[in-house]
Amino acid sequence: MIGGGQGAFIGAVHRLAAALDGQYELVAGAFSSNAETSRASGQLLGLAPGRVYGSYQEMLAQEQARPEAERVQVISIVTPNHVHFAPARLALESGFDVVLDKPLTFSLAEARELAAVVAATGRRLCLTHTYTGYPMVKEARALVASGQLGRIRKVYVEYPQGWLSRLEEGSENKQAAWRTDPARSGVAGAMGDIGTHAFNLLEYVTGLQVEQLCADIHTVVPGRLLDDDGAVLLRLSGAASGVLVATQVAAGEENNLRLRVYGELGGLDWQQADANTLLVKWPDRPAEIRRTGAAYLSTAARHNARTPAGHPEGYLEAFANIYRNFALTLQAELAGQPPAPEALDFPGIEEGVRGMAFIETVIASGRSAAKWTELSV
Amino acid sequence: MIGGGQGAFIGAVHRLAAALDGQYELVAGAFSSNAETSRASGQLLGLAPGRVYGSYQEMLAQEQARPEAERVQVISIVTPNHVHFAPARLALESGFDVVLDKPLTFSLAEARELAAVVAATGRRLCLTHTYTGYPMVKEARALVASGQLGRIRKVYVEYPQGWLSRLEEGSENKQAAWRTDPARSGVAGAMGDIGTHAFNLLEYVTGLQVEQLCADIHTVVPGRLLDDDGAVLLRLSGAASGVLVATQVAAGEENNLRLRVYGELGGLDWQQADANTLLVKWPDRPAEIRRTGAAYLSTAARHNARTPAGHPEGYLEAFANIYRNFALTLQAELAGQPPAPEALDFPGIEEGVRGMAFIETVIASGRSAAKWTELSV
Amino acid sequence: MIGGGQGAFIGAVHRLAAALDGQYELVAGAFSSNAETSRASGQLLGLAPGRVYGSYQEMLAQEQARPEAERVQVISIVTPNHVHFAPARLALESGFDVVLDKPLTFSLAEARELAAVVAATGRRLCLTHTYTGYPMVKEARALVASGQLGRIRKVYVEYPQGWLSRLEEGSENKQAAWRTDPARSGVAGAMGDIGTHAFNLLEYVTGLQVEQLCADIHTVVPGRLLDDDGAVLLRLSGAASGVLVATQVAAGEENNLRLRVYGELGGLDWQQADANTLLVKWPDRPAEIRRTGAAYLSTAARHNARTPAGHPEGYLEAFANIYRNFALTLQAELAGQPPAPEALDFPGIEEGVRGMAFIETVIASGRSAAKWTELSV
Amino acid sequence: MIGGGQGAFIGAVHRLAAALDGQYELVAGAFSSNAETSRASGQLLGLAPGRVYGSYQEMLAQEQARPEAERVQVISIVTPNHVHFAPARLALESGFDVVLDKPLTFSLAEARELAAVVAATGRRLCLTHTYTGYPMVKEARALVASGQLGRIRKVYVEYPQGWLSRLEEGSENKQAAWRTDPARSGVAGAMGDIGTHAFNLLEYVTGLQVEQLCADIHTVVPGRLLDDDGAVLLRLSGAASGVLVATQVAAGEENNLRLRVYGELGGLDWQQADANTLLVKWPDRPAEIRRTGAAYLSTAARHNARTPAGHPEGYLEAFANIYRNFALTLQAELAGQPPAPEALDFPGIEEGVRGMAFIETVIASGRSAAKWTELSV
Repeated sequence: MIGGGQGAFIGAVHRLAAALDGQYELVAGAFSSNAETSRASGQLLGLAPGRVYGSYQEMLAQEQARPEAERVQVISIVTPNHVHFAPARLALESGFDVVLDKPLTFSLAEARELAAVVAATGRRLCLTHTYTGYPMVKEARALVASGQLGRIRKVYVEYPQGWLSRLEEGSENKQAAWRTDPARSGVAGAMGDIGTHAFNLLEYVTGLQVEQLCADIHTVVPGRLLDDDGAVLLRLSGAASGVLVATQVAAGEENNLRLRVYGELGGLDWQQADANTLLVKWPDRPAEIRRTGAAYLSTAARHNARTPAGHPEGYLEAFANIYRNFALTLQAELAGQPPAPEALDFPGIEEGVRGMAFIETVIASGRSAAKWTELSV
Repeated sequence: MIGGGQGAFIGAVHRLAAALDGQYELVAGAFSSNAETSRASGQLLGLAPGRVYGSYQEMLAQEQARPEAERVQVISIVTPNHVHFAPARLALESGFDVVLDKPLTFSLAEARELAAVVAATGRRLCLTHTYTGYPMVKEARALVASGQLGRIRKVYVEYPQGWLSRLEEGSENKQAAWRTDPARSGVAGAMGDIGTHAFNLLEYVTGLQVEQLCADIHTVVPGRLLDDDGAVLLRLSGAASGVLVATQVAAGEENNLRLRVYGELGGLDWQQADANTLLVKWPDRPAEIRRTGAAYLSTAARHNARTPAGHPEGYLEAFANIYRNFALTLQAELAGQPPAPEALDFPGIEEGVRGMAFIETVIASGRSAAKWTELSV
Repeated sequence: MIGGGQGAFIGAVHRLAAALDGQYELVAGAFSSNAETSRASGQLLGLAPGRVYGSYQEMLAQEQARPEAERVQVISIVTPNHVHFAPARLALESGFDVVLDKPLTFSLAEARELAAVVAATGRRLCLTHTYTGYPMVKEARALVASGQLGRIRKVYVEYPQGWLSRLEEGSENKQAAWRTDPARSGVAGAMGDIGTHAFNLLEYVTGLQVEQLCADIHTVVPGRLLDDDGAVLLRLSGAASGVLVATQVAAGEENNLRLRVYGELGGLDWQQADANTLLVKWPDRPAEIRRTGAAYLSTAARHNARTPAGHPEGYLEAFANIYRNFALTLQAELAGQPPAPEALDFPGIEEGVRGMAFIETVIASGRSAAKWTELSV
Repeated sequence: MIGGGQGAFIGAVHRLAAALDGQYELVAGAFSSNAETSRASGQLLGLAPGRVYGSYQEMLAQEQARPEAERVQVISIVTPNHVHFAPARLALESGFDVVLDKPLTFSLAEARELAAVVAATGRRLCLTHTYTGYPMVKEARALVASGQLGRIRKVYVEYPQGWLSRLEEGSENKQAAWRTDPARSGVAGAMGDIGTHAFNLLEYVTGLQVEQLCADIHTVVPGRLLDDDGAVLLRLSGAASGVLVATQVAAGEENNLRLRVYGELGGLDWQQADANTLLVKWPDRPAEIRRTGAAYLSTAARHNARTPAGHPEGYLEAFANIYRNFALTLQAELAGQPPAPEALDFPGIEEGVRGMAFIETVIASGRSAAKWTELSV
């Protein structure tokens, strides 16, 4: 693991998610750019001292030098955005498969370059867009793909948070500090942090691509350096249209990502706050409540759940599904077999590049007087 | 009553709403432009045959000719949009107070002219924007006005329906026929029918005004002549911003108007599908569930409910609140007293003119390549 | 109307419910046993002074003496329980049809006697068990009757309120005063006030009858004279069993009557707090959300709604359905025609007698050391 | 681990729960009474073959024989009920701490004996009553303990399942087979499987004890050998009363354990289907929505969550909390320190004995003609 030292949020989540299904064991880490912090973090995590490193360069070099059976197989990179590209490239070029926290990179240019590295090295890259890991999001995607909703016409995705409704920068809130810092987060704040999740969810479930957008981007809290709020009109492939909302100043909101999709024949509605439910709505008959763990669900939904209906699975399980599917893919390849379709169902470099294109396009549109801006990778 | 003959939807709703609190008695009507239909409708409603008229002109003339104590006092106009202006003007000029279904008129020009008539005649006009009649919408408005949410930053209003997700025009659906006909509905379809409700709700609760907007307007169903779907980015007074969504092609949706408002200090969330609940959200303490009928509510919310908490009040009660407040206002004036603030709380000519400005602006923006269009009355 | 003077709760509800559909006009009343209060109440309601009476005896006598076309047709009795029997008997014997608030009488003995009066006079009696008036309760009953749930095995009904969680007796709360007074309420408090509603709902929806019960009855608040809380195990016809809970000391609860019924093949779940939804659950496929106003509903559900899906109907509409169906029945009979099945769907004398049997049996069981007590009418 | 071989449900859950927080490593197992199945299961789990045993006796003997640093520390027993007591006693007497799936034993007599073994050996025993591991259940307990609800008056706990609404015995459903078999499950079916969870949750949150009960117990599905349904009236310490419902024949229900508690001053409502929410209700002010991960929660609630508010935690996390707290307790003791109060917060031998007393008492009451039966350990 690269990053994720003491006090980090997402690093701990990665560790929990990787541990859940027993597919991964944490054996080495460069947990901080500060060598002392890295050692202390490694010790807390019970790692062998010799495999806690002072820098990711050191880790990658020394692990590569170990006998194949004794070295790490997958590198998880859980650093702030500005430290994604370099360690990811080095890890790939050192022969490791990589799990990378989103967004893919600091900029679209880096993203394109990383895509070339992935292609050149032939290694696997997994991008942790958590929300696509939920069983009922899988069900939603399968439902759209089945054609039962007809051609998709409208898509609404929203991601309201409230935790940045005050100026947290300068406080002890480490998360707030880097996520609102252009030098570490990139060109976008809220749009990079959560807007890109909403964008990914929307494209994943519908199978459509955003082609043009019209963004209204705000920095609501005085003193903040990046956007903390935005709303975006969308034009999608297949003549669909939609709206994407992402805000971190909706005071009192937690983290309730929600997606609604309407086709010619019916609609679907999923929200993280009730993650084990997918509502499916029809014009002429009662709406259906589909539930995680039920036997009537699609293969994809059933593959990504662990317990029978009525045992709530949550955020960590969704996260773990991404890790698990990635492991199943790597294991199949190690065994010389083609991975199963269920295993290959994790976000990767393509989603990462599109995510970065979204971020740069939405910020550009926000600054533009033109109504519509093309999104192209 | 003008309009509302057999088979009409909103005419029946007006009658139920007016009857509920016993403040109105239906005594005369011109229920259809077809004299025969009017007579038949009047008979079904149990009216004296002599007070069922073949046209609104006839009704207004003959009622005006009756002794003051024996003539109608209030004229309800529940016709399609293209028959709002002329009867409203004539009724006002004939000395009657008027209840008018929304939107105010067929065009903004007519709306402005009607405003002048109201001013000139000194009669009262009440516009039935139903949704502002809900007790918990009153509570929402009182909460914003109290300042407890701080300065308002974000507003989201949405009105998803699915009943026009297929081409209903040409079927027996009388509602679909006129609402999608430019000759009867006006320049807008969904935006006039339900977008204007969403707009009114938003301005009513926040006390802010939409100043600029950026609209993406669609006619999704092939063969339809007016818009059936739209999304609008909003810039409001007080440096707030927002999103308005109105669609009639969200297959499977009923009628779930929803408003969310976020200020510096907290937020609120109301939706018609759970109309007796107002969620109030705070960053640092548990969200509150405020409920119709509770003793802790604002004066406005309590005034507009009839039963203790736990006895659901619905759409007809909300509609009836508008009629009731209008009646209380007219009764006070008849008694030579100033109406109470609670009585004066009904939508009127000003809301009507703003609604028509919204309709014309949103359609213009939809056709414009410019990002932002000014909304001015 | 008998009873329902100033400050009464249920009298006002009866007036709103009767007015809603325009089938009733309030023309006469004996609103209080205090003649002065009666006159004042009548004046407030806009009645002709000559038809506001000082006692129900006076009203019934004088109305009966009027020409048939000019006298009241239906007598609504909305007094406390101890003043149900005498005016109901007199009204029936004076040739009037009667609407009576529940429970039917002060005692089972009175109930049986009243049943004999109904049979002897041939007049109609309608008992306002409001909750059976909800459209989705009608749907629930139709669903059970259709056999789609299979044989019914389990029934859970609960009616939690919190308004008597403190000793309100002696305060200004007029409702609390008589409902907790054995001299006016009868042998039971909560069980008579709300337990009887739960009992009626359960028998109405399932079509089963409670045959034996085992009750645990409490007076929780010190100083109270009647029960304010109870739970009851039920044995029903058809080998079904169930639980009935009714309490008025569930501090913080409003009025959320809820019924769940499970058969061999599926289950249903309805609650007043979300009155326009009926959940229907199946073992092998997604649960369904059935909604008031939808076209796919049973005839009974559609007959008892006024607006399309998505326009919430509430408590007053449910109450009004009972009044409306009673009116439709009386109108059919006046026209010499058999009432339609939908019209005959209102609670009457039989439900009233069973309700009184429930009340007396449940209180007896609460005092008994025996486990099971027979319920017989 | 003892039990939990291929096809077992709860064994897999124990492994996921133990793995989540990285406090346990699975190193040895006797996964089945069939040695071959045990070996195959161990292989699938990636264990060293030398530590996969053919019987629990063999495992305990051989592990005890290993050097202290190399042997297992905690034994998880996840077998059917009839194989709880013997391995638990042997494990304790062999010097191991034990995690045991509920119910504690096959009979109350065994439970009392096991309690004596725990006392004699001084080892720790942890009983996995999962539902008390939820953060918002912790919050509920803390709220009651704080006295803010006043003296507790009423408790309602219900556990409706539908998975045994048909005769699953004889099908491939391994879970159904042993849970309905008196030889493996014990004297009770549903009451032992889920009733005991409901009982534990109720006593845990309220801090009260059930003193007397009156049970109505059914075997609803023809051909079944044990109860599959029951309802129980409760008398608790502190003059409280309540109702417990547990059924496995509520066709269409999943697993929605729910607890409601009402005191003199307010009430609380928690259900597993919305596990991250605790509703707190008050008579005179809005109900509160308390949420997992929020900063305003009690120490206990915060200790048992891993992610900030808005990241749903579920069943596995609740299960993991029990494992984690047990680990923290053992670690403290290993370090010679007193465990923190948060660490000691897991169910143990006392809860286990009370659970077995509940099971035997509730079945006895079901067979008794007496209304009330004493519950004594």
